[in-house]
Amino acid sequence: MAVVEPPKQLLVPLKVEERLLMGPGPSNAHRRVLDACAQPILGLLDPRFCAIMDEVKLGLQYIWQTKNKHTFALSGTGHSGVEASIINMTERGEKIMICVNGIWGERASDMAERIGCDVRKIERPIGEVFTLEDIQKGIEEYKPGVVFITHGESSGTTCQPLEGIGKLCHNNDCILIVDSVASLGGSPLNVDDLEIDVVYSGSQKCLGAPPGLSPISLSPRAWKKLQSRNTKVPSFYFDLTMIANYWGCDDGPRRYHHTGPINSVYALREALSLVVEEGLENFIARHQKSAELLQDGFEKMGFAFLVQDKRHRLPTITGVLIPQGVDQKKVSAFIGEKYKMDIPGGLGKSAGKIWRVGLMGVNSTKDNVNLVLKAFQDAMDNIKLQNNL
Amino acid sequence: MAVVEPPKQLLVPLKVEERLLMGPGPSNAHRRVLDACAQPILGLLDPRFCAIMDEVKLGLQYIWQTKNKHTFALSGTGHSGVEASIINMTERGEKIMICVNGIWGERASDMAERIGCDVRKIERPIGEVFTLEDIQKGIEEYKPGVVFITHGESSGTTCQPLEGIGKLCHNNDCILIVDSVASLGGSPLNVDDLEIDVVYSGSQKCLGAPPGLSPISLSPRAWKKLQSRNTKVPSFYFDLTMIANYWGCDDGPRRYHHTGPINSVYALREALSLVVEEGLENFIARHQKSAELLQDGFEKMGFAFLVQDKRHRLPTITGVLIPQGVDQKKVSAFIGEKYKMDIPGGLGKSAGKIWRVGLMGVNSTKDNVNLVLKAFQDAMDNIKLQNNL
Repeated sequence: MAVVEPPKQLLVPLKVEERLLMGPGPSNAHRRVLDACAQPILGLLDPRFCAIMDEVKLGLQYIWQTKNKHTFALSGTGHSGVEASIINMTERGEKIMICVNGIWGERASDMAERIGCDVRKIERPIGEVFTLEDIQKGIEEYKPGVVFITHGESSGTTCQPLEGIGKLCHNNDCILIVDSVASLGGSPLNVDDLEIDVVYSGSQKCLGAPPGLSPISLSPRAWKKLQSRNTKVPSFYFDLTMIANYWGCDDGPRRYHHTGPINSVYALREALSLVVEEGLENFIARHQKSAELLQDGFEKMGFAFLVQDKRHRLPTITGVLIPQGVDQKKVSAFIGEKYKMDIPGGLGKSAGKIWRVGLMGVNSTKDNVNLVLKAFQDAMDNIKLQNNL
Repeated sequence: MAVVEPPKQLLVPLKVEERLLMGPGPSNAHRRVLDACAQPILGLLDPRFCAIMDEVKLGLQYIWQTKNKHTFALSGTGHSGVEASIINMTERGEKIMICVNGIWGERASDMAERIGCDVRKIERPIGEVFTLEDIQKGIEEYKPGVVFITHGESSGTTCQPLEGIGKLCHNNDCILIVDSVASLGGSPLNVDDLEIDVVYSGSQKCLGAPPGLSPISLSPRAWKKLQSRNTKVPSFYFDLTMIANYWGCDDGPRRYHHTGPINSVYALREALSLVVEEGLENFIARHQKSAELLQDGFEKMGFAFLVQDKRHRLPTITGVLIPQGVDQKKVSAFIGEKYKMDIPGGLGKSAGKIWRVGLMGVNSTKDNVNLVLKAFQDAMDNIKLQNNL
């Protein structure tokens, strides 16, 4: 006897309305990227699929400017990159120093604590970045084996300067993990030049693929540390040695570790193809130019920003301060309704303080900047009008 | 200065050749499912996306015949279901009894050991299932807090009878985890009737969606155990309490846990829609009928099967024994080349012993059965011919 009857809601085929995603991600995808998702499924170790994985690896090495052999993608969203980096680079009881200036440092701390790391934090207020001296002081005090820092803090809308941190870590026998989920493609991030040991990102930000994959890259130093662990990584699913083998990064034959999310890999491949076509320098320059235009426009309209210092503003996500007396949710709802455009508020400590306007991937254009500014002006005029009534 | 030049391979758009995937999964997807992947991306907490998640929940409750409120999908492939089930249902040092008759029990044991569980195994040879007495004896000897068993063993091609195991576990104050990755949709699996506490599957088998999601369902008993843990789950990414909230399974507002793999969820929704259209009973009956036809055909051709007892053969994946003197890889390559059809060999302890012929989702048809049989006959004739030359 049936316990559950067939749900009527599922008798209708899916039809999704197009929205303009001008928030902190996911961003919209190019039609070519979406169409790639719909190409036929291949077997998980089909040589044709392995060749596509190889192309993804090349594309990631290019966008990160790294020769790291161990560059591939995790079968999980951006959060899986945070978790995999930490659990592979530490062992139970090991000291990790986490730089917290927003939600990503907080989540990284949570993850590290869950597996029994000795977590030490250094902190900066939301909207501010760390100086090299802050980090040096922390390393001297805590003597950690691993340092975690966020390049693009999507909650604080900051872009952390990374120059010198890698060298500092290495002089102190530390591994450096950098979160580049919200920054990759929007700011230069030359992983080898910066001496970053583990860097990861998400498929759905500047790359403009659907969410579901977390690209990751490990330096030879990180790989050596991983290979000299005393204990197994506390996760099979995120065991980077096994995943790297599946991605053909070592010299052995590829073994079945898990069933790769085939169609998501197609989409990532196609997203990387678009970056290669445009050229990395042009791609980054476009993101930076759009951000400048957006900020100039908001300034002219009398808005201010969460991040005071222009040099530390994230080009991909701008934190626009909510003027006194304005209701963030009302403005977002107005814009959502009238312009079919999604611009959410803050996250964590920036909640209630800002809108987060994203300009990523195909969305990072002059036309979209103008549309966002127009929509905000329209919203503000309407809300003023309403308040006067 | 550029460290890595733009890879030329990525200057060509992706074009994937269609293959007929008649192995243990992934299987082919219906065009409507692939097209769903290519629909526009929505924001991760957009009410329109939340409504789609709700439909997925309803579809999963239907296909598992369960009223479990905590029924949703993990943002990872089938392996993530194994790992999430184990790490959420146990705490460090807790005893878990794992029934090992193939690769899934082995991998579950590996996962449980990595997080410090006290793992006790009961074992059966590949191609055989456990009796209720085997399990009872194990529970009496080890007194575990959790029992893990695989319904559809894709390496041993067995279908484990589940009747009575739930009750046995509950009489002994145990939680029962059942792996249904390879069986869901191919064999009846009435989760509530069977008193299963945690069940999970994969999107890419009978459901015929691309790989990348692991549906999961927790009974009230499993949920209660999860809520009364003394320690945090040793993974943020797979913390089922947080993920269930994101899927709207509790009474609180949905919070941002991670960015759902939006387009993969669309595909799963559409795959479930096809099951609802066909009707669960018809869907399962079709899988069972195709498997019978296939086995009859192979028998007539003189082949034998890894699983002796017909009642314990997995309807979704049939393990066909490799006749003496025949090279499995040569046959698979011949069929792959001539018929564009993928039929791999065994896995783990069944490697070198069998081909694994899958009949799942849209692939489970009489025409495909006939094509597989024709291809095997053709291959055997050719290989015999070659051997005679």
